[in-house]
Amino acid sequence: MKIANRMDLLGSETAFAVSAEASNLAATGKKIFPFHLGDINLPTPKSVINAANNAINDGKTGYCPAPGIPQLREALAKDVGNARNIAYEIENVSVQPGGKPSIGKYIASMMEKGDSVLYPNPGYPIYESQIEFYRGIAIPYGYINTSDGLKLDFDAIEKGIKNGAKHIFYNNYNNPTGASSSEQEIERLAKLVIENNMFLISDDAYFDTLYDGVPKSIASYPGMYERTLTMYTFSKKFAMTGWRLGASIGPKEVIEQINRLNVNMESCTTHFVQYAGLAGLNAPKEETQEILDTLKVRRDALVGILDGIDGVETHLPEAGFYVFPKVTELLKNTGFDSVEKFRKTVLKETGVSFCGRHHFGRPLESEKDLYIRLAFSGISLNDLKEGMELFKTWIASNTK
Amino acid sequence: MKIANRMDLLGSETAFAVSAEASNLAATGKKIFPFHLGDINLPTPKSVINAANNAINDGKTGYCPAPGIPQLREALAKDVGNARNIAYEIENVSVQPGGKPSIGKYIASMMEKGDSVLYPNPGYPIYESQIEFYRGIAIPYGYINTSDGLKLDFDAIEKGIKNGAKHIFYNNYNNPTGASSSEQEIERLAKLVIENNMFLISDDAYFDTLYDGVPKSIASYPGMYERTLTMYTFSKKFAMTGWRLGASIGPKEVIEQINRLNVNMESCTTHFVQYAGLAGLNAPKEETQEILDTLKVRRDALVGILDGIDGVETHLPEAGFYVFPKVTELLKNTGFDSVEKFRKTVLKETGVSFCGRHHFGRPLESEKDLYIRLAFSGISLNDLKEGMELFKTWIASNTK
Repeated sequence: MKIANRMDLLGSETAFAVSAEASNLAATGKKIFPFHLGDINLPTPKSVINAANNAINDGKTGYCPAPGIPQLREALAKDVGNARNIAYEIENVSVQPGGKPSIGKYIASMMEKGDSVLYPNPGYPIYESQIEFYRGIAIPYGYINTSDGLKLDFDAIEKGIKNGAKHIFYNNYNNPTGASSSEQEIERLAKLVIENNMFLISDDAYFDTLYDGVPKSIASYPGMYERTLTMYTFSKKFAMTGWRLGASIGPKEVIEQINRLNVNMESCTTHFVQYAGLAGLNAPKEETQEILDTLKVRRDALVGILDGIDGVETHLPEAGFYVFPKVTELLKNTGFDSVEKFRKTVLKETGVSFCGRHHFGRPLESEKDLYIRLAFSGISLNDLKEGMELFKTWIASNTK
Repeated sequence: MKIANRMDLLGSETAFAVSAEASNLAATGKKIFPFHLGDINLPTPKSVINAANNAINDGKTGYCPAPGIPQLREALAKDVGNARNIAYEIENVSVQPGGKPSIGKYIASMMEKGDSVLYPNPGYPIYESQIEFYRGIAIPYGYINTSDGLKLDFDAIEKGIKNGAKHIFYNNYNNPTGASSSEQEIERLAKLVIENNMFLISDDAYFDTLYDGVPKSIASYPGMYERTLTMYTFSKKFAMTGWRLGASIGPKEVIEQINRLNVNMESCTTHFVQYAGLAGLNAPKEETQEILDTLKVRRDALVGILDGIDGVETHLPEAGFYVFPKVTELLKNTGFDSVEKFRKTVLKETGVSFCGRHHFGRPLESEKDLYIRLAFSGISLNDLKEGMELFKTWIASNTK
């Protein structure tokens, strides 16, 4: 039995391997401090849970339309549109079993074989995987470390466009770097997309997790409405990662194609889960604010501790769950020449588990600095502090 | 914005259009008798619902492993293996959001571009759609109407194999025909698959809905274990169509690839729904028997009424939700030259809604007879009788 050649093109999320490694170590009795997880260890809001229970008891257990129940599509059109100051209708929304399915479904629908596609690297590894699986040419662009945080590498983006890129994945409030774009950066990117007749996929997974101020979407920029597909997810804001609920939101012609893929791939998203999501959108703001407040306390604690470690340089992420410290000096100080070796040693000797930059795409040739990613969404404040204490002690006793 | 060429290759389930047509008519106030639906209008068993509620309250709301929670994979390996008298282990099982995802994931994993693939036609239209989407050559095989029910057209299967078919979709207890294979038929098919070094995808959606006796799977046949992927679903037996829970079960090398696609496509199947499915597998047999008992009464009533209509020839389906009467004479008697025109007229004038053979694949050149499909899973016994009474009266007054 021979596996099809196309499977050679398929990537993965290697961060899952870190989870497995940590679980194996935990099984030996070692206490693990899970900074590797993008999952959330907080309960889903009560309104959402109650709505799910009610919908199940109410018999919302049969098939529903492949694009989603009309009520949820309508609510998303309104909610996502309002937050971006643009007008969406029900036909602009295709409900998905999570945020992730939008990646492959967009690529399958709109990317011709051989098309070049820009994607952030470091970034969510499934962009590259799906571009290459459908035989596109994946062109990475990175971030530049400035005193004001990590910024889009426009040289790389412009070079990619010169080389013919037709689509670009853009993840403001980026995983894993925590980078967020200034208004100027969004404007510059939007202009490039419009001038070069491109299409942009805006991964808004962390849009609703901005800790202070009002989040910005490139879809709001004049001329971008027709050129943007928004990847929406309930996972982060509503602590619903395991519920598998999200949506593709954008131009009707694109959504129509994505709906056809829904019919072919999964028939529909779990029926009663859609009612739960609807309740989330209508829930009192305090319920989701509580989640964000908890995460913000963790973020500040983590960044505070990291700032006190020699050889570690950290930016405060404005949104999302991730801190992405530069550890070039730290590795030199502790005598490591690779992040992977450093990570494995720290995990084994302290139980502190995190990911490296290499879990978010093949490092680019131009990169000279080394980074790790610490997530604060899946660990309690106490464990966060205890883990960081061990980390600091380990560093102190391993600095040459 | 140009849609990618590959989308021209993608098919659909045109039966959904019949649903939409019926809904539109219902919206005008007309009473609809829904014989077009493969959905179930019966509640999901209490054990399953309770387990879902408990799992949500218990915080099974975060991510879980992409291949599924180990408890469910283990239970499925045991349950599906025992029912087929073969031994599966946890690595043989990949949990899916429904029965359907196994189709595309098998094709993507194992079918090389240009491979020929046999598939039943009439049959579930997504087989053909996914074969062609991934640029395989879809070769249909039909059924032959005998006094003993519809039987596999082995001439067509053998011709397809001579033409190089490497894979075959097989749906015992077939949708839409209700055809089931004798032991001899299964043996003959298994021999062909083994002799010609092929791989078989056994769509077992209706395996657990056999009304009398013990269901048979081709995976049990000596030599087929390594050549069979079983498409398993919780939808039918447990009245869980809208929950989206199923599994791919087969050789570890295939499951490994399907797991990689899970990571890329949806991360995981809804976490707490997997606990609900687990409870279903462990539930008292009476809970699922009640569903089958109700469906059996409907089946017998429907076939009884159809047998009393001139020009209609029906076989009693041994499993599943569908009656597939031959209506060649009936259409002649009522002056129709196409099933689609007949269907639309009957719907409009009586509210009785059903599908035609053409909703389950492009009719084959060799076909001379005309068929419709009546589902009895989505309609109460009373409505079934009332609808059929209207149908009979309409036929009587329209017979020339």
